[in-house]
Amino acid sequence: MELEINAVKGGICAPKGFKASGIHAGIRKAMGGKGRPEKNDLGLIFAEKECYAAAVYTQNKVKGAPLYVTKKHLADGKCRAVIVNSINANTCNADGVEKATQMCELTAKALNIDIEDVIPASTGVIGQILPIEPFMDAIPRLVKTLAVTGSNAVAQAIMTTDTKMKEIAVEFVIDGKKCHIGAINKGSGMIHPNMATTLTFITTDVNVNPDFLQNILREVVDITLNRVSVDGDTSTNDMTLIMTSCLAGNKEINIENLEDTRIFFSALQIVLDYLARQMARDGEGATKLIVCDCQNAKTIEDANNVCNAVITSNLLKCAMFGSDANWGRILCAIGNSGVEYFDEKHTEVSVSSQKGEMLLFKDGGGVEFSEEKATEILKEEEIIITVNLNQGECSSYAYGCDLTYDYVKINGDYRS
Amino acid sequence: MELEINAVKGGICAPKGFKASGIHAGIRKAMGGKGRPEKNDLGLIFAEKECYAAAVYTQNKVKGAPLYVTKKHLADGKCRAVIVNSINANTCNADGVEKATQMCELTAKALNIDIEDVIPASTGVIGQILPIEPFMDAIPRLVKTLAVTGSNAVAQAIMTTDTKMKEIAVEFVIDGKKCHIGAINKGSGMIHPNMATTLTFITTDVNVNPDFLQNILREVVDITLNRVSVDGDTSTNDMTLIMTSCLAGNKEINIENLEDTRIFFSALQIVLDYLARQMARDGEGATKLIVCDCQNAKTIEDANNVCNAVITSNLLKCAMFGSDANWGRILCAIGNSGVEYFDEKHTEVSVSSQKGEMLLFKDGGGVEFSEEKATEILKEEEIIITVNLNQGECSSYAYGCDLTYDYVKINGDYRS
Repeated sequence: MELEINAVKGGICAPKGFKASGIHAGIRKAMGGKGRPEKNDLGLIFAEKECYAAAVYTQNKVKGAPLYVTKKHLADGKCRAVIVNSINANTCNADGVEKATQMCELTAKALNIDIEDVIPASTGVIGQILPIEPFMDAIPRLVKTLAVTGSNAVAQAIMTTDTKMKEIAVEFVIDGKKCHIGAINKGSGMIHPNMATTLTFITTDVNVNPDFLQNILREVVDITLNRVSVDGDTSTNDMTLIMTSCLAGNKEINIENLEDTRIFFSALQIVLDYLARQMARDGEGATKLIVCDCQNAKTIEDANNVCNAVITSNLLKCAMFGSDANWGRILCAIGNSGVEYFDEKHTEVSVSSQKGEMLLFKDGGGVEFSEEKATEILKEEEIIITVNLNQGECSSYAYGCDLTYDYVKINGDYRS
Repeated sequence: MELEINAVKGGICAPKGFKASGIHAGIRKAMGGKGRPEKNDLGLIFAEKECYAAAVYTQNKVKGAPLYVTKKHLADGKCRAVIVNSINANTCNADGVEKATQMCELTAKALNIDIEDVIPASTGVIGQILPIEPFMDAIPRLVKTLAVTGSNAVAQAIMTTDTKMKEIAVEFVIDGKKCHIGAINKGSGMIHPNMATTLTFITTDVNVNPDFLQNILREVVDITLNRVSVDGDTSTNDMTLIMTSCLAGNKEINIENLEDTRIFFSALQIVLDYLARQMARDGEGATKLIVCDCQNAKTIEDANNVCNAVITSNLLKCAMFGSDANWGRILCAIGNSGVEYFDEKHTEVSVSSQKGEMLLFKDGGGVEFSEEKATEILKEEEIIITVNLNQGECSSYAYGCDLTYDYVKINGDYRS
């Protein structure tokens, strides 16, 4: 049976039981900077009833203060609300945990719920004290404006240097019931002084066993959001959170329920894969999405290592910016990737885009090709680099972007 | 006793028994490109008598063809000559080993020595056939022009995108005899299609046990040339070769000879540390040298990991280009480094240059500092980032450079 998973409107409010709102709270102004009243900087996600929740976090040893509070509040696997701000990451501050807790207190009070049902999140500048005053005034207003049309307002509130809002929702059927997954996220962004940070919030109404939910989230993130690199730096505040209201009315999905699991897994994968590609494409300064597709590796580690090495090579990223079919750099990256089973003589490398496909390397040497055609292929906005190792049956992929003048400008010139 | 190690002139011909020459052979023109007759592209190093030799090679799994021939010719631990070209790396070509062997044959014949005493090396574009014709004409001319004043000519012949020639020689006394070490190298360079490649050639007249020579070379390279990163890519053709004529007349240095070993080790370290710093400072597009100095780590691995993470962070490299005291990115890089023993609350971060030193982070939070003074410090051409982990007694350092518009231009715009 083919899966039927369709895009729908509504973002994180498409699943039953969720409302959201976003607002300009004036956080930057309270930090002494120039405010931009047209841009939301604070968002709220609220569930009518307590949700099962699961999350995965950054692997960076330096962690934002909100993550410590989030972990504590998610210890029971449940929550009802998310309060999230941009502009200030509340990281590397001595009073960080205190401030994150205050964000939750204000939210819990305004919503009349338990403080441990509130998840805090922040993104923006590291190492500047988070002013709490803007939250005092704004949170009651956020609660008043909660609406099923509010997904956009939160999606905007978490944007930093993102040039595009990142939001999606899908609909599908499980156990004869109409089900939904919605999600918003932010990609690598810069706030003075420029810290790339990723936050992803997912809502659903599918009835899933809570332990199973955590496992599925981890697996799907591993093949979607963890396949993205904009510049190789893992941020301090990364978090992906999923909440389910269970209101779709389906029989609980658990590990014994393979068919339903497959549908839910696929729907979540479609949602997070979409966001992963959007993040890479909207990487700081990027002009194009670079996909590396590694085929026929002996092991999945080899396939992953090759993909990661190719999309994180600065030399290759520059070549892609210049639409230069510089396959020597692809070979160099493969050789540096830590790949275990590899023979230059059996490796094939090609590039493709909407304008066609071109083999560049085979039998241990370069293939003669038309430079003109190669440039035409590489001038497109989505480039696929295919590496066929011819060593086995494992494959993987990764999403990245080119390295451009604007990346240097955004991250180097900001204060000069 | 203080070591007395003094800089002298003569480069790789400062040690007794060596001559060198460099020439414009016209390799680029023979490949169909525009020649630049004012730039040497082929060099020769020649020893009057057979030398003990040792080498270390790239860890990249894709290796340049010359490396296979070099390893074969160095199997007996001896050699007399090095023939080296720029413009073309002779890598990823089906006939690569054949061409590298031909380079040796031509050189051996012109010098009337054994082919296995010749070491070939190439740097430049990957994946284009190396034309052998220019070598046929040029090698006899190279032999005719061999001179003790020829170090410069070879140093120029191996330059690619290097903006400065890299050459050094030192003099010191061992066992009452005047001894020398000379060296030349090339840093990360670009030849169409732009492959960063590092080659280092060291000559000496110190009498050293050949097995011991290999061990010392490996150890010194590990704390000098292996502490450099320009853009995180290890090239396919990297090689560091040391040859000794043993003509200084000292008693053979071996493992039982601690004092003499110490002098030789220190002299070699001074030579390679100088080249390491020169390479980083002259990295593609770089405007400044960035040194990361990690102190008081619990383990040497921790210290190395922190240094490497800091100098390879694109975000931080951009901030350094913008002279921005963006310590959040330093913390972020430390957190991503894989450091095992780390506590944010005990970590201190400061930056310094000729214009002074400034503490930026302490006790888990930012220290108030003057932005004006910080910018003054960071506008210098050599910046030291000091990370004090306060966990133990190990320390390390690494050399890098900033990430600039010119890096993107050199590597992305070259053919557009």
